[in-house]
Amino acid sequence: MVAELQELLGPKGLITEPAEMEPFVVDWRGRKRGTALAVVLPATTEEVSAAVRLATAAGVPVFPQGGNTGLCYGTVPGSGGPGNTPGLVIALNRMNRIREIDRTANLMTVDAGVILANAHEEAAAVGRQVPMYLGSEGSAQIGGLISTNAGGTGVVRYGPMRDLVAGVEVVLADGRVLSDLAGLKKNNTGYDLKHCFVGAEGTLGVITGAVLRMFPELRSEANAWVSVKDPADALTLLSRLQDDCDPYIQAFELLSASQVDIAFRHVPGLRMPFETTPAWNLMIELGSPDGDLDLHARFETFLAAAYEDGLVEDGFLAQSKAQAEEIWRVRHSLSESNKKEGVGVVLDISIRNSRAAEFIHTADRGAADAFPEAEIVVVSHLGDGNVHYILMFPHDYWQGLGSEEARDAKADEVMVAFHDVAAALGGSFSAEHGIGRKLTGELQRLCDPLRYEMMTRMKAAFDPDNLMNPGVLFGN
Amino acid sequence: MVAELQELLGPKGLITEPAEMEPFVVDWRGRKRGTALAVVLPATTEEVSAAVRLATAAGVPVFPQGGNTGLCYGTVPGSGGPGNTPGLVIALNRMNRIREIDRTANLMTVDAGVILANAHEEAAAVGRQVPMYLGSEGSAQIGGLISTNAGGTGVVRYGPMRDLVAGVEVVLADGRVLSDLAGLKKNNTGYDLKHCFVGAEGTLGVITGAVLRMFPELRSEANAWVSVKDPADALTLLSRLQDDCDPYIQAFELLSASQVDIAFRHVPGLRMPFETTPAWNLMIELGSPDGDLDLHARFETFLAAAYEDGLVEDGFLAQSKAQAEEIWRVRHSLSESNKKEGVGVVLDISIRNSRAAEFIHTADRGAADAFPEAEIVVVSHLGDGNVHYILMFPHDYWQGLGSEEARDAKADEVMVAFHDVAAALGGSFSAEHGIGRKLTGELQRLCDPLRYEMMTRMKAAFDPDNLMNPGVLFGN
Repeated sequence: MVAELQELLGPKGLITEPAEMEPFVVDWRGRKRGTALAVVLPATTEEVSAAVRLATAAGVPVFPQGGNTGLCYGTVPGSGGPGNTPGLVIALNRMNRIREIDRTANLMTVDAGVILANAHEEAAAVGRQVPMYLGSEGSAQIGGLISTNAGGTGVVRYGPMRDLVAGVEVVLADGRVLSDLAGLKKNNTGYDLKHCFVGAEGTLGVITGAVLRMFPELRSEANAWVSVKDPADALTLLSRLQDDCDPYIQAFELLSASQVDIAFRHVPGLRMPFETTPAWNLMIELGSPDGDLDLHARFETFLAAAYEDGLVEDGFLAQSKAQAEEIWRVRHSLSESNKKEGVGVVLDISIRNSRAAEFIHTADRGAADAFPEAEIVVVSHLGDGNVHYILMFPHDYWQGLGSEEARDAKADEVMVAFHDVAAALGGSFSAEHGIGRKLTGELQRLCDPLRYEMMTRMKAAFDPDNLMNPGVLFGN
Repeated sequence: MVAELQELLGPKGLITEPAEMEPFVVDWRGRKRGTALAVVLPATTEEVSAAVRLATAAGVPVFPQGGNTGLCYGTVPGSGGPGNTPGLVIALNRMNRIREIDRTANLMTVDAGVILANAHEEAAAVGRQVPMYLGSEGSAQIGGLISTNAGGTGVVRYGPMRDLVAGVEVVLADGRVLSDLAGLKKNNTGYDLKHCFVGAEGTLGVITGAVLRMFPELRSEANAWVSVKDPADALTLLSRLQDDCDPYIQAFELLSASQVDIAFRHVPGLRMPFETTPAWNLMIELGSPDGDLDLHARFETFLAAAYEDGLVEDGFLAQSKAQAEEIWRVRHSLSESNKKEGVGVVLDISIRNSRAAEFIHTADRGAADAFPEAEIVVVSHLGDGNVHYILMFPHDYWQGLGSEEARDAKADEVMVAFHDVAAALGGSFSAEHGIGRKLTGELQRLCDPLRYEMMTRMKAAFDPDNLMNPGVLFGN
């Protein structure tokens, strides 16, 4: 099969040297490793189709890969152990064409391998935005962002990736291409299959193209870094802001002092507008495409009133675009800084807003009792009820656990403890990171069994031989 | 089985008298009739579950019904002919409880039988809106609106029903209840099954409950009835409005003169702000939850400039809430007036905005050539690229066709002709009305065969014995 692939794809399209395959078989944080027969780098949808057809006809699994920026090992191929056939990694790096920009219809059609930052640039060039904003936007690819239904800081206004996708092109398990790139706003002709693939983590097919929704770029903006006493006050402030300025809220992010300190410790060139790090930090963006609005004045009035009422302890309202960028540079440096700080066991809790403070409070007590070695770090897309509760273990402590098995066991212990807290409050253990290979056990443990059964039926309908990203979601 | 159902549901819960069943086995326009063993009127999800279990265990099909306001006979049960077992209509009329209103999370949890107008009232009572607006809102039920992924005049701002649903509770074919009413903004724990049921027209299960998203109510508004020369100018005006006022566009509706005249002919008490009916009419609403905006002044300036440029021929900007309501009363009277005027063969075309004028132009020529007996009526959610192109046949002409077969053949002839025009322009033949029993042939004819195949696989995964609304979508 590898010889056939070589013939089909040419020298640029296939990697079989172990050293060259290395970046494609390990996750970006270097925590999980798989194995592969070869890495396929197709240039077109037709090449993906042909490669998938060859592989699955031979019973060889296919592991789709975008920018490899995930946190749940969803792009790491199988280990090649017993019952775990080595397969093909299909990395879409070379499929990076912007296919069409339709400014009137506010649609951008792209190859799945287009990097998010490039999509941002292309949209900005026509006065539009593709409003998906996250730390990895310089590497994350559109196909991966769709497959994981990515979140980020724009969700509070625009929704997750699901809401930004107007159509997908997918190579199915048998190599056939299911294409829906018409980009219609409405189409009630039966089941909307694109929603099957969004968030499916490559288990139903390989996304090769997509139509993305564009939105008007912002012409009025106001950005602030605000300090509050605790998460409960942060939520009260959010409610007040929603009552007063709901259509303008573009981002509403909560960071613990520990999180801010880590960023400043490891990422050079960051700037803090306060003398000392506040206990709880809110980074808030208001924005509108309406250039006539004075959101700066509006925000100033709002914050002054909140300060008067004791809800805000201190605040810094950016006076320039540069100052605004400085605020958001801190927010977007967190993945990088956290990786340097230690080994973070990152929880990705989703919970109704009204219960987010209670979650943090309950989790804090549990963490202090059970995991005293870890520092507690909180970064939350609070506007979405999404709390990244992180137990940050020192590198030394983590290595001192001895074996990979011991480390995995510790990580599992942390996850189970806090996932249970979330579940007891009606929340979910994966808001935006997905399941990957990391949380398959938790999915089985916490998912409604009927829902789990229906998911396996859907999987079987699309991929009866379980050759599309096996091991992801379902764990086998 | 009927005896068991009687025992189970009590006298209020079951209808078996043919005369009493009548309103449940005929569509509201009286065009299609089915037959049923009984009509089940369950009071709870548990009763739906028990009834479905009894029916499907006995091989008896189930026909879910909401407000019976559809245009494609999706709620009409099977005819009971050969290969067409009579079944149970399950009408959710008695399941009309608002289960919870969570103002902080902006969520309303309801029984599926809640009537849309009631949901509107409940949301308004807490300063919120459930932004789904259509002519049948006084009878349409939430479950039906979800099952058909309903559209209406609010889609341009808030999206179709799919975008307003945060969770569903569904009775599956075997009677088990799949419930996801947590109402989380984010939840990436595998496939998002709710999207399977949205727009599935009852073919995958019976929706019994839902969580709806609420939005802030509007505190600034401006409404206008504007006349333009032709659809192309209407689209140019839309583009200008999007550049200038995108976040405020709440509705953008286009009506032909013929459509306006029909409304005034049949519905008493309507008021027209012009001396004579304009050739093409736009009804536009701007709105924002921001009460500080003066959208009236803003709209006045915009329209004055468009008038100067010759883009707008005449315009009436509502000076009061009462005047605004008068404009929208005309828009919402169309289903009623069209039913009285004649027999309308209603096309429900979806097309990229940029091609809507071309579609109307091409269709007009085709209609004049092939169907001279019909008057052409256009009502379009132009902001969504959704054109209801209607061929209005006089009642006399239609009856004169003789048999029901001849009438069906004529309707099919019309549909095929104009669906082909839409398809040639990259459009869809069903934007918001769905497929029902009416368009199953067109779905087979026009749907990508691979997509059709994957839909049948999905159907089989959820309903292997084809007992959930058989005959709808797939035609058998």
